Amino acid sequence: MTDHIYRVIEIAGSSEVSHAAAIENAITRAAKTIRHLRWFEVTQMRGEIEDGKTRHYQVTLKVGFTLEG
Amino acid sequence: MTDHIYRVIEIAGSSEVSHAAAIENAITRAAKTIRHLRWFEVTQMRGEIEDGKTRHYQVTLKVGFTLEG
Amino acid sequence: MTDHIYRVIEIAGSSEVSHAAAIENAITRAAKTIRHLRWFEVTQMRGEIEDGKTRHYQVTLKVGFTLEG
Amino acid sequence: MTDHIYRVIEIAGSSEVSHAAAIENAITRAAKTIRHLRWFEVTQMRGEIEDGKTRHYQVTLKVGFTLEG
Amino acid sequence: MTDHIYRVIEIAGSSEVSHAAAIENAITRAAKTIRHLRWFEVTQMRGEIEDGKTRHYQVTLKVGFTLEG
Amino acid sequence: MTDHIYRVIEIAGSSEVSHAAAIENAITRAAKTIRHLRWFEVTQMRGEIEDGKTRHYQVTLKVGFTLEG
Amino acid sequence: MTDHIYRVIEIAGSSEVSHAAAIENAITRAAKTIRHLRWFEVTQMRGEIEDGKTRHYQVTLKVGFTLEG
Amino acid sequence: MTDHIYRVIEIAGSSEVSHAAAIENAITRAAKTIRHLRWFEVTQMRGEIEDGKTRHYQVTLKVGFTLEG
Amino acid sequence: MTDHIYRVIEIAGSSEVSHAAAIENAITRAAKTIRHLRWFEVTQMRGEIEDGKTRHYQVTLKVGFTLEG
Amino acid sequence: MTDHIYRVIEIAGSSEVSHAAAIENAITRAAKTIRHLRWFEVTQMRGEIEDGKTRHYQVTLKVGFTLEG
Amino acid sequence: MTDHIYRVIEIAGSSEVSHAAAIENAITRAAKTIRHLRWFEVTQMRGEIEDGKTRHYQVTLKVGFTLEG
Amino acid sequence: MTDHIYRVIEIAGSSEVSHAAAIENAITRAAKTIRHLRWFEVTQMRGEIEDGKTRHYQVTLKVGFTLEG
Repeated sequence: MTDHIYRVIEIAGSSEVSHAAAIENAITRAAKTIRHLRWFEVTQMRGEIEDGKTRHYQVTLKVGFTLEG
Repeated sequence: MTDHIYRVIEIAGSSEVSHAAAIENAITRAAKTIRHLRWFEVTQMRGEIEDGKTRHYQVTLKVGFTLEG
Repeated sequence: MTDHIYRVIEIAGSSEVSHAAAIENAITRAAKTIRHLRWFEVTQMRGEIEDGKTRHYQVTLKVGFTLEG
Repeated sequence: MTDHIYRVIEIAGSSEVSHAAAIENAITRAAKTIRHLRWFEVTQMRGEIEDGKTRHYQVTLKVGFTLEG
Repeated sequence: MTDHIYRVIEIAGSSEVSHAAAIENAITRAAKTIRHLRWFEVTQMRGEIEDGKTRHYQVTLKVGFTLEG
Repeated sequence: MTDHIYRVIEIAGSSEVSHAAAIENAITRAAKTIRHLRWFEVTQMRGEIEDGKTRHYQVTLKVGFTLEG
Repeated sequence: MTDHIYRVIEIAGSSEVSHAAAIENAITRAAKTIRHLRWFEVTQMRGEIEDGKTRHYQVTLKVGFTLEG
Repeated sequence: MTDHIYRVIEIAGSSEVSHAAAIENAITRAAKTIRHLRWFEVTQMRGEIEDGKTRHYQVTLKVGFTLEG
Repeated sequence: MTDHIYRVIEIAGSSEVSHAAAIENAITRAAKTIRHLRWFEVTQMRGEIEDGKTRHYQVTLKVGFTLEG
Repeated sequence: MTDHIYRVIEIAGSSEVSHAAAIENAITRAAKTIRHLRWFEVTQMRGEIEDGKTRHYQVTLKVGFTLEG
Repeated sequence: MTDHIYRVIEIAGSSEVSHAAAIENAITRAAKTIRHLRWFEVTQMRGEIEDGKTRHYQVTLKVGFTLEG
Repeated sequence: MTDHIYRVIEIAGSSEVSHAAAIENAITRAAKTIRHLRWFEVTQMRGEIEDGKTRHYQVTLKVGFTLEG
């Protein structure tokens, strides 16, 4: 295995459904513009409340992807 | 926008179903006695185990609400 | 077991005797105005020094109590 | 000195001018409804950006006040 | 209540379905070889990504169980 | 509200005047090359000292901006 | 001195008397089944409250012991 | 009140009796060589174990004292 | 560049005006007795409140200076 | 890939040569009694000093291994 | 000195030889695509184990570089 | 064993060769002016980069030494 170099970025995804869905939204969006996505770690789980109900679920993720060359 | 002042409190919700349900229980209970709930952040996800099975899912949340006046 | 909801507050107790006594003072005072106290966690142990001697022992506690209804 | 007991709460203040002003707004608002305020500690400094400019400065404070009786 | 002594261990579970399922997998596996499991706490939520999709959901848990004798 | 996705980056600004000015410098510079800046959080306040006087005030900020598409 | 290798485990002790007694209970129990105990570090001090009184004092300890061979 | 400047140092005290005694030993020793001691904060509670028994109780303290002039 | 060795100390400054002024007071005082001051980092921003108003602004700083020889 | 379950333990290795050697000593010792070792993370780098020289280099590692069955 | 603005990114390097080599690999790779690299900080030291031997050494670094214009 | 009291200070060493050498430089310098050095702990590993190459390796250490009398 050659000596892989990863870049680690931080992204926040949201969803009106659940934190789980917010994670998928974030990774799907990242995959649109970044290749070789390898791993993610959840660093924060938040949400916005309106009229006593959870309106938006938000997660912040660290995402690692291998750098080419 | 006037200079909002938020109060931040900490509550723990539980559920026999899931952590996601425990979050909803906590926010629903908070909304009974507190107005202008604005946001929440998950600070801990725990649970109790009985006979090798998860019996209760518990989450601790920080919840922010705007103070009137 | 119904899905309990806890409120978590932070209080600081002090004593001229010891940190152990400061913990009891804090819980005794909290029990005067709050029902269904369930658990506590020590988050800080401090003290004030006068003339080279410990004058006051101070502890900060997180205290959890179940919310009714 | 009798064994003082402090309550510690968390509040967030905001200002369109600066973080320093946001601190004063938070303490002024707290003093409206809470007596015997004794100390505060800044736990977070945030802000909101609109059109490339800082629109709101926000600080989260822990505030300690002595409990009577 | 006799003075219980708990042992605390750290385990990581994974699942191709969700973090919630990964928690259950970890606890089910622990229960195979450890008696008197009492509580767990989630300390990390990660995942592996393949072809722009979440391939494995991983959780790290602290698990407490009472020691006999 | 569609499910917004934010990118979070870290930048450090400096100023010979104050930490407050260093924050504005950092955000002004970020706004030159990044659209849809939404929020910032101060993660570190440092400075350099020369001849017993503060020469440079430095702040490190996390800055969030919404990703298009 | 040969190159010692230590194992570090986490245990929680409890007592109806005090945190100090809970520490001794935890170490006494560990010494029953583990040889070459070398050091401990307190990582958490909690307690359970019943009828406004501290019912159980709990401490979580990291304990290090040398591995043979 | 003039603008006090404090120096903060870190010391570790030990005792064969208890953590409480180790705190007193540390402060008594500090008072021998440092004037205007004002406050302390416990940052670590450790100990050494010999033959299955706690042999030494160790505490690490941050201690603040006012600087003259 | 020879291999510089820095000493890092912790000091707390206060001011009746602002946190910014408290930083300057701390560095000015340190410069009276310490040469080759190089950098500082803010580790805590507190304050004391009297009659609902901020009475003293306090900052704790880590300060680095190069050791001679 | 079946849903792997990892156990995570903490070990401390030492060496009279270097931290790098202490890491190898710790992993070599762990491999004697544990199969399927997968990964490690350095959590602490310490050392003991005698006569002004580093006498022992110590590292604490978290080590993960897959559980069978 | 003009008011420099730094960008801070996170990268992970690996090596089959040592953590020290992994640091160099990460910086060498970053230097290929980023100008004005100024400083780095090690935030994590990990590794992968195969057949009881360390197979890959991995370090995560925060790297700061000055932004032009 | 009498009740030892340790003082804990923070020093930063640098080297153009490696982090390992920076640790030795720091301890060697400390030993010039401080007696009874007992232990050290690495709290930060940084470095400076020039022309895409690591120019200086820097480590920050906590160092403990026993106080006489």
